[in-house]
Amino acid sequence: MATLGFIEYSDSSPEVRAVYDDIMRTRNTDWINNFWKALAHDPASLRRTWQSVKEIMAPGALDPLANEMIYLAVSASNQCGYCIASHTAAARKAGMTDSMLSELMAVVGMANESNRLASGYQVEIDEQFKPR
Amino acid sequence: MATLGFIEYSDSSPEVRAVYDDIMRTRNTDWINNFWKALAHDPASLRRTWQSVKEIMAPGALDPLANEMIYLAVSASNQCGYCIASHTAAARKAGMTDSMLSELMAVVGMANESNRLASGYQVEIDEQFKPR
Amino acid sequence: MATLGFIEYSDSSPEVRAVYDDIMRTRNTDWINNFWKALAHDPASLRRTWQSVKEIMAPGALDPLANEMIYLAVSASNQCGYCIASHTAAARKAGMTDSMLSELMAVVGMANESNRLASGYQVEIDEQFKPR
Amino acid sequence: MATLGFIEYSDSSPEVRAVYDDIMRTRNTDWINNFWKALAHDPASLRRTWQSVKEIMAPGALDPLANEMIYLAVSASNQCGYCIASHTAAARKAGMTDSMLSELMAVVGMANESNRLASGYQVEIDEQFKPR
Amino acid sequence: MATLGFIEYSDSSPEVRAVYDDIMRTRNTDWINNFWKALAHDPASLRRTWQSVKEIMAPGALDPLANEMIYLAVSASNQCGYCIASHTAAARKAGMTDSMLSELMAVVGMANESNRLASGYQVEIDEQFKPR
Amino acid sequence: MATLGFIEYSDSSPEVRAVYDDIMRTRNTDWINNFWKALAHDPASLRRTWQSVKEIMAPGALDPLANEMIYLAVSASNQCGYCIASHTAAARKAGMTDSMLSELMAVVGMANESNRLASGYQVEIDEQFKPR
Repeated sequence: MATLGFIEYSDSSPEVRAVYDDIMRTRNTDWINNFWKALAHDPASLRRTWQSVKEIMAPGALDPLANEMIYLAVSASNQCGYCIASHTAAARKAGMTDSMLSELMAVVGMANESNRLASGYQVEIDEQFKPR
Repeated sequence: MATLGFIEYSDSSPEVRAVYDDIMRTRNTDWINNFWKALAHDPASLRRTWQSVKEIMAPGALDPLANEMIYLAVSASNQCGYCIASHTAAARKAGMTDSMLSELMAVVGMANESNRLASGYQVEIDEQFKPR
Repeated sequence: MATLGFIEYSDSSPEVRAVYDDIMRTRNTDWINNFWKALAHDPASLRRTWQSVKEIMAPGALDPLANEMIYLAVSASNQCGYCIASHTAAARKAGMTDSMLSELMAVVGMANESNRLASGYQVEIDEQFKPR
Repeated sequence: MATLGFIEYSDSSPEVRAVYDDIMRTRNTDWINNFWKALAHDPASLRRTWQSVKEIMAPGALDPLANEMIYLAVSASNQCGYCIASHTAAARKAGMTDSMLSELMAVVGMANESNRLASGYQVEIDEQFKPR
Repeated sequence: MATLGFIEYSDSSPEVRAVYDDIMRTRNTDWINNFWKALAHDPASLRRTWQSVKEIMAPGALDPLANEMIYLAVSASNQCGYCIASHTAAARKAGMTDSMLSELMAVVGMANESNRLASGYQVEIDEQFKPR
Repeated sequence: MATLGFIEYSDSSPEVRAVYDDIMRTRNTDWINNFWKALAHDPASLRRTWQSVKEIMAPGALDPLANEMIYLAVSASNQCGYCIASHTAAARKAGMTDSMLSELMAVVGMANESNRLASGYQVEIDEQFKPR
């Protein structure tokens, strides 16, 4: 179920299939999750989104586990059901333990609380914290 | 500037001062930032919020740098000006480099984009991603 | 299913029925969707909300298709499941094609990404962009 | 400062002036705050928005203080700077004390925290809580 | 269903059970809702979150009904399905009538509308509204 | 002012300069706005973000004015100050009149209101609106 339905691998055009193949190769899996199958009706969006995700989530100054945990933290904060489910799975695959998940959620909760206290009390930014 | 104004260390009650002292000791600093001075009009909130922050941000399954980066990611996603400024400073103090900051922001941006694509296209959660 | 349940046409008071009739006449449909049936427990809210929607969504400087697409863009950005489903249907009825839907979602995704990059990097507003 | 600038009382059309007069009479004040002066470039929006606010904020099952506190709670949760400032003032005028403000902010903070914990842990709704 | 599953009372450790007992005693109920059972995998989070909720929701400058209504208003504004369901039930238990619920939702809706109008039109804060 | 400061054209590396040149050529302007100068510390993010924006905002099933108005609608809904300012300017350059701006804001406001009413009343999606 998705607005435009899913495009399965077996029904995909060469352009879409090339992206699907790269997703499976990069992630070392043998299936494509619904997010990509829903996007595939617009091959340009599929390609562009995948290229960006691939580039951003690759190892760099942050390792893949850190990237996945930040992704999950944002998704939990935004309350995106699909994204919480898929990135909980991805973060676990990258090494997140149950304890790490619990601590991540505690930080997400606390940040959401203190964000509203800071804004709600109209707290002025300290000189020490201002960017140069 | 803040709704109820700030309570400075020199004007603080013993109850508030005890929290201020613990903040400076725990963070190894010699000043109190505006967030706490704005909260201090309600000593119970000050104490409770600080105790939670102290407990959550302490080393555990995640180290302080990871905690601060998740905090910053959520604050950037929520667009809380005060929190972005203060936690950018805190994350840097904990070891975040400019490259790590840039990668963090890239993940935050991408997660916010894909969260809306997943919701906007009404993508159903894959069976493989559902919690048991 | 809704907090207060639904008020069906056949069970509605004259005040509620008058709104239901106006909704069906204005939209050229023969049924009332759940949103209005859930609101109808508070006839004043039902009437006021419908009057506002009717006035705002009418042709003006923007045509109904543009209005519906903006409505859908906001609902996708807010991740409101009910509103995404109902306004996808409404926008299609007003002429939105699959390609237009895909481009709309791409803009919604990109705007959500760049909103966080701008806030997260604490970017100052250019003089050229400030309102007079 | 506002996108379209402000329409002052002395420069207002009869249609806008009638709304301004009703705002001042209803609120028992002798000035118009910037929100309305920014909206007044679109007299239809000005009139419709004011009529809705006037109707919703009037005494009913909830008294004006409760209405203003709920308005402030939502504005703090959404982190709308203008709205926090204006509705803090309005709630105080309606009787909100400093202690009530602090408790309101504590509830807003806690709700924002627990909202993310519930979503982040993918907690299923208890049968006992489901609407009939 | 929840990411880490639920910890039932009969399977709980003494530490978790002590919190469960306090929840049931404080709320005068004989069951534990899913939120707490999902959190219980991290006993420190369970204890800390419950202590904060208990302290914040207790009678003070605001009575329990006001606290629950503010909690529900924030949850509706954040569109947290679990929290809307559970706090609608809690607010009703504390005395919220159907009319009060409808007025609350009307204020939540209007605040969300005007928050965006104020931000969208880039409305500057009036001098009269600025905190000292 | 920005977390990492701005990279001016005259100080930019060849890689950054190539993006700056393409931005000015594509937009037919002779200056670079702060957003890009803040991103330029991370040339990979600068290039990727600009490529995506360029591709998404190009004429397609939606014309540039429609794209800019949707971008502005999302930014107003998210209350991103920088983005509201910059995309108000961009939408105007693409042809948005004051009347179109006012109607856009009215739709954004109403969508934000009705999103919360639909979620707050826990309204079930009508069968007619469900994706196939």
